[in-house]
Amino acid sequence: MNPTLPVYFGPVRHPDVEARLVAAGAELVDAPADARALIWTDPFKARDLIGALHPVVEWVSLPMAGVDRLIAAGFIDNTRVWTATKGVYADAVAEHAIALLLACSRRIAAAVRRGSWSSDPGWRLRGERIAILGAGGIGRAVADRLVAFGAIPIGFNSDGRPAPGFAETARSSALAETLAGCRGLIIAVPFTAETNGLVGERELEALGPDGVVVNVARGEIIDQQALVTALADGRLGGAGLDVTDPEPLPDGHPLWSLANAVVTSHNANPYRQLPWDACVAEYAEHLAGNVAALASGQPLDGVVDVSKGY
Amino acid sequence: MNPTLPVYFGPVRHPDVEARLVAAGAELVDAPADARALIWTDPFKARDLIGALHPVVEWVSLPMAGVDRLIAAGFIDNTRVWTATKGVYADAVAEHAIALLLACSRRIAAAVRRGSWSSDPGWRLRGERIAILGAGGIGRAVADRLVAFGAIPIGFNSDGRPAPGFAETARSSALAETLAGCRGLIIAVPFTAETNGLVGERELEALGPDGVVVNVARGEIIDQQALVTALADGRLGGAGLDVTDPEPLPDGHPLWSLANAVVTSHNANPYRQLPWDACVAEYAEHLAGNVAALASGQPLDGVVDVSKGY
Repeated sequence: MNPTLPVYFGPVRHPDVEARLVAAGAELVDAPADARALIWTDPFKARDLIGALHPVVEWVSLPMAGVDRLIAAGFIDNTRVWTATKGVYADAVAEHAIALLLACSRRIAAAVRRGSWSSDPGWRLRGERIAILGAGGIGRAVADRLVAFGAIPIGFNSDGRPAPGFAETARSSALAETLAGCRGLIIAVPFTAETNGLVGERELEALGPDGVVVNVARGEIIDQQALVTALADGRLGGAGLDVTDPEPLPDGHPLWSLANAVVTSHNANPYRQLPWDACVAEYAEHLAGNVAALASGQPLDGVVDVSKGY
Repeated sequence: MNPTLPVYFGPVRHPDVEARLVAAGAELVDAPADARALIWTDPFKARDLIGALHPVVEWVSLPMAGVDRLIAAGFIDNTRVWTATKGVYADAVAEHAIALLLACSRRIAAAVRRGSWSSDPGWRLRGERIAILGAGGIGRAVADRLVAFGAIPIGFNSDGRPAPGFAETARSSALAETLAGCRGLIIAVPFTAETNGLVGERELEALGPDGVVVNVARGEIIDQQALVTALADGRLGGAGLDVTDPEPLPDGHPLWSLANAVVTSHNANPYRQLPWDACVAEYAEHLAGNVAALASGQPLDGVVDVSKGY
């Protein structure tokens, strides 16, 4: 039995998570100054965390998967370990990604908008190649579900090395060429300097008039003006977006009304719905694993690498 | 090598299907009067088939899965074998059923209607019990996909006997009681006197204010007025309907505009899209198997039983 680890858990608390932390060896303390670990739980008040940081804090846990904005703001120092919930919500995000894909491929968004009877069947996933930009935890969870529908998941990563769960993998730099053989693209990659604007006119054109793009990562990865034009001109078949540029997407934006587009409000990743009821089990397991790891001097899960940008 | 079987295939023809029939032992003939088998391919002109029927025809293949209306019309005689495409399109129909379920559970229909940013995440399939009325080919294909999302598929059939692919099975007569523990109901059962109106106010109420009903079978299985009222009152969370009563659903019907309802236009079962491009491989295999079976005196697949009603 390791000695207990003093942990501050807040500002939003959840009894199930607290119980799991204590079982993993945490002693919950009320004052951040008494803690070796600071588990910050409110993504909307991340800046309040600065006031809670104390030199003895060895590990800071952030509640979100994407920390690009915090890195850009110089928020993350190099005097301790910072973790993000990378991949923790993969199952939830993948489900939403598939929902958005099917809403477009099965022409459901179009049917809701039309509001009258019309044969407009869309297309089936079986036998179709579906590209997944990002072959990490979320990409793998998306790929597993696509296989259940008989689709062929093609993963993309920086060097094209094989990744488990994908029928094929390719280099992200060959995205446009590879998309020419695909009917769908699901974006599930961290937002970095390399992925900023990676999906532009050429990539959308490659998907074609039946093709569908889904984004559950970050709005800026798509050239959004090119997307609007491609959809309006019928050069792209559909778009399912849980993320936009900017967020919230302003009322009256063309993406709200294009026939086969659907925008959900950054709902795939449930950390935004405090206190994460939808994913509380996965979140608690992630934290408990890291409490046990810190207490026993093992490497933590989800460590932020500022040099990579995620 | 069996001798060739004279087969009439029409009125709509498809070269891939014809090639598969010939490979299975069919000799394609132009006149129905010369045929031992009549493969009728146009669901919208089924009555024209009467003119093509000839006493020597031993087997008639119908292009649709549900033949309740043809049975009710006294269309199906007892002097030969009639087959329907029962389960042939299971994969395609199951995909559409999951698309409709996710469109409601992930609040996509609501997001399309709203057209502005709003946190409205819906719920996750993982760990949820989802009822499937009908534990046949389509039900099984739906169950397989639900399992890939971590949901628990509960099948219903007449006597509650265990069915492969389902976590549990229950009797259809216990539908309302069992639905109280389920968050979704997918209707994938033949339309018969027993299933007519089977899903009424009590069953919809049991699903509750977050619950979702999906129908890919026949509109008349749901008490549609009870459905409209439950949705409008917020006693049911959502409805994804590929079938309605009547079809086409008239313009201005409340189901076209209720916040979390979506109606697609009988598109799940692709036999309505001649010449069945979306499912041509499955259709060709079904026909080829039956050609070979008839030629060698084996039982056919998908035989219509008028006494059962499907």
